[in-house]
Amino acid sequence: MTDGKKKGRPRILFFDLNETLLDLSEVRESVKNAFEGRNELVPLWFSSLLHYSLVATVAGQFKPFDEIGISAMMMVARSNGLDLSEDRAREAIQPIMSAPPHPDALPALKRLKDAEFQIGLLTNSFQKVMERQLENAGLAGMFHINLSVEEAGIYKPHRDIYGWAASRVGKWPDACMMIAAHGWDVAGALWNGMRAAFVARPGQELYPLAPVPEIVEPDLEGVANRLIEMGE
Amino acid sequence: MTDGKKKGRPRILFFDLNETLLDLSEVRESVKNAFEGRNELVPLWFSSLLHYSLVATVAGQFKPFDEIGISAMMMVARSNGLDLSEDRAREAIQPIMSAPPHPDALPALKRLKDAEFQIGLLTNSFQKVMERQLENAGLAGMFHINLSVEEAGIYKPHRDIYGWAASRVGKWPDACMMIAAHGWDVAGALWNGMRAAFVARPGQELYPLAPVPEIVEPDLEGVANRLIEMGE
Repeated sequence: MTDGKKKGRPRILFFDLNETLLDLSEVRESVKNAFEGRNELVPLWFSSLLHYSLVATVAGQFKPFDEIGISAMMMVARSNGLDLSEDRAREAIQPIMSAPPHPDALPALKRLKDAEFQIGLLTNSFQKVMERQLENAGLAGMFHINLSVEEAGIYKPHRDIYGWAASRVGKWPDACMMIAAHGWDVAGALWNGMRAAFVARPGQELYPLAPVPEIVEPDLEGVANRLIEMGE
Repeated sequence: MTDGKKKGRPRILFFDLNETLLDLSEVRESVKNAFEGRNELVPLWFSSLLHYSLVATVAGQFKPFDEIGISAMMMVARSNGLDLSEDRAREAIQPIMSAPPHPDALPALKRLKDAEFQIGLLTNSFQKVMERQLENAGLAGMFHINLSVEEAGIYKPHRDIYGWAASRVGKWPDACMMIAAHGWDVAGALWNGMRAAFVARPGQELYPLAPVPEIVEPDLEGVANRLIEMGE
């Protein structure tokens, strides 16, 4: 990527959904309750979910993100001596369907649209879950294109997913920018030719073994400001 | 895999190293100290290490397991408001080089060798780390072949790693058995044609979305018993 390209506006912005646009606090609360109040197991559950999403990817055993989340919940429960049925785990993950947007999400998306940015979505949620999530969060219709990894058969940050997303909008990766609150997503985008912006939400960290993205801001308002400042 | 094949002895047993043969309690203690005594962050660190080993694999950015471990430690520390330097993290992971064997490891390996099983090693540790680990644990020379994922350029449980290991010993995957204390490793082996034995050490769980292995025992003594019972 040349400096010249870096200074111009990305042709399209791909937003991550879970935790970047959507606030998963209610899911975390619900999962905490399934873990009998053991709050320290919630980040372990989310990390296991991410680990097993990639297990599914590398092993060629692609399954829905929420199903993997249920399995990961049961494993974390069992390994900590808790009795958690599959039904109870399935119930505990349900609030992911109705996660509200972070307060900065809709204003930032609107400002970017007003500034004539093309905006898309690239999420690990499967198609139907993504649609319900967008509908419930009041974000349906905000994007030029909604891409779920389900269509590609691999989870982020597989090297092929970023090029695939770019090709779906008829662009090269370096004309696209991934905007995410996860170090691994930003890293995957950068390693595979996309530009990236990191939303440094509380508890989120960049991956030390990856390049630093050109934009690092505490919230989407900051990211939108930096993008709008960029010339054409 | 036919029932007939299942009932006979595997031609070769591939043992996982970390946590299956080696006891990582001292590493966990050392990492806990780096986390200022916050024990609940240690499983989160290990899960993040596994997650990022697969991030490295899917993103085509293969890095040593211990380097990923150091990065994961720094991320977990930062996201929990702890100040941890890279040097301190590097120091904290050092005990992984001198992890002692679980008490059941050497007796089980010896019994299996006496019973004329071929035994090999298939580990996520890189070559030099693996060699130091085996030497320090008194396990060097126990295996017909020591395979590190470093040679393959992908971490377990990538679908290609099990077929690669089998080919390195001139066998088809279904003539090999993976023996591991991790649900994801056993799952990867089974999904990709190997047989598998799960060592259900405390805190370890099978992955609910994978087939159940033919052997599930609480320790390596139990696994060895089950294998030795098998006819030729």
